[in-house]
Amino acid sequence: MSIQQRSIETRQNIIKAGKACFAQGGYDATSVSAICEGAGISKGAFYHHFSSKQELYLGILEEWLADLNRMVPNFIESGSTIPESFRQMSELVPMVFQLADGQLPVMFDFWARAARDPELFEKTITPLKEFETLFASYIQRGKIEGSIKEVDAEVTSKVLISLVLGVLLQGLLAPDDTEWGHIAKQGVSWIFDALEAKK
Amino acid sequence: MSIQQRSIETRQNIIKAGKACFAQGGYDATSVSAICEGAGISKGAFYHHFSSKQELYLGILEEWLADLNRMVPNFIESGSTIPESFRQMSELVPMVFQLADGQLPVMFDFWARAARDPELFEKTITPLKEFETLFASYIQRGKIEGSIKEVDAEVTSKVLISLVLGVLLQGLLAPDDTEWGHIAKQGVSWIFDALEAKK
Repeated sequence: MSIQQRSIETRQNIIKAGKACFAQGGYDATSVSAICEGAGISKGAFYHHFSSKQELYLGILEEWLADLNRMVPNFIESGSTIPESFRQMSELVPMVFQLADGQLPVMFDFWARAARDPELFEKTITPLKEFETLFASYIQRGKIEGSIKEVDAEVTSKVLISLVLGVLLQGLLAPDDTEWGHIAKQGVSWIFDALEAKK
Repeated sequence: MSIQQRSIETRQNIIKAGKACFAQGGYDATSVSAICEGAGISKGAFYHHFSSKQELYLGILEEWLADLNRMVPNFIESGSTIPESFRQMSELVPMVFQLADGQLPVMFDFWARAARDPELFEKTITPLKEFETLFASYIQRGKIEGSIKEVDAEVTSKVLISLVLGVLLQGLLAPDDTEWGHIAKQGVSWIFDALEAKK
């Protein structure tokens, strides 16, 4: 194994151990020492990869969003029209639940902290803004291709993201019998029923 | 002032002081002593009204939801059809922002705690379930009166609540220039465009 491979592997081990520690004890109660122990590495190795516990947590969020971000364009290109693509993309919701498994309490810990720290807050909210911009550009494309009515692309993007966020919040809060993936799919589909330009 | 009036007033003072303390210092950092000081009352008076800080916080949430709950039926009765009523009801969203002003960080503190405490969690999630049931009953009514297509009332209710929750979450997280009330209104309106039975 090359040095570079080993370094990537160590980083992945830290992320894995971090997720486990955070899920078990919460953000505040988790120490860098505990994460190092979980990952089987020294503190030196930890700080080589992350400058702090906060950086690690942001790294975990980033990796999580990168997984999603990678998939979105595939969906957009695979549909024959933008409404079609969005309907297919709503299939991603169950995957988000899988990725977020067990991380809800720590997310609340972290948000509570971010809500009191403007700089951290900015970093936490950035990915949401990026999704907003991305979705708005797709809606714009739908208007140009003639598959979507003359609606405000930014408003539409925010409506879609609100719906999906609300589904995720509820699904994570109350993972009861509800098929939350189905709720997201149905909502997105209805919104595009309303937005789709009649041929 | 009668004893009963005084008691109601004390309770309101505690709630007001609690809100202020929670908003300022967060849930965990707020002590019952600080709340008593803010309300200008003794600990004895506090415990006469609430058995614990947690009970007070649940009381605040309850009062908040009761304000909303009181208004929902008015909207439903005032619209000529159920879709019309829901469209009007989406006007409530800006009011929710007003009611929740400054309380987001403490909500996260509290949810983080609730996510680790099944009994507390149950109490926190109950109002959401009640709204779900209420909205589903209105959708059912719309189907009976012929204004709404043959959709699943529970699914529809969950879609609507997801949308509104997502708007609230974003509006509270990022109170930027966006008119979040407008986003909610637009989303609800599109969903009912899709659901409304053609006459």
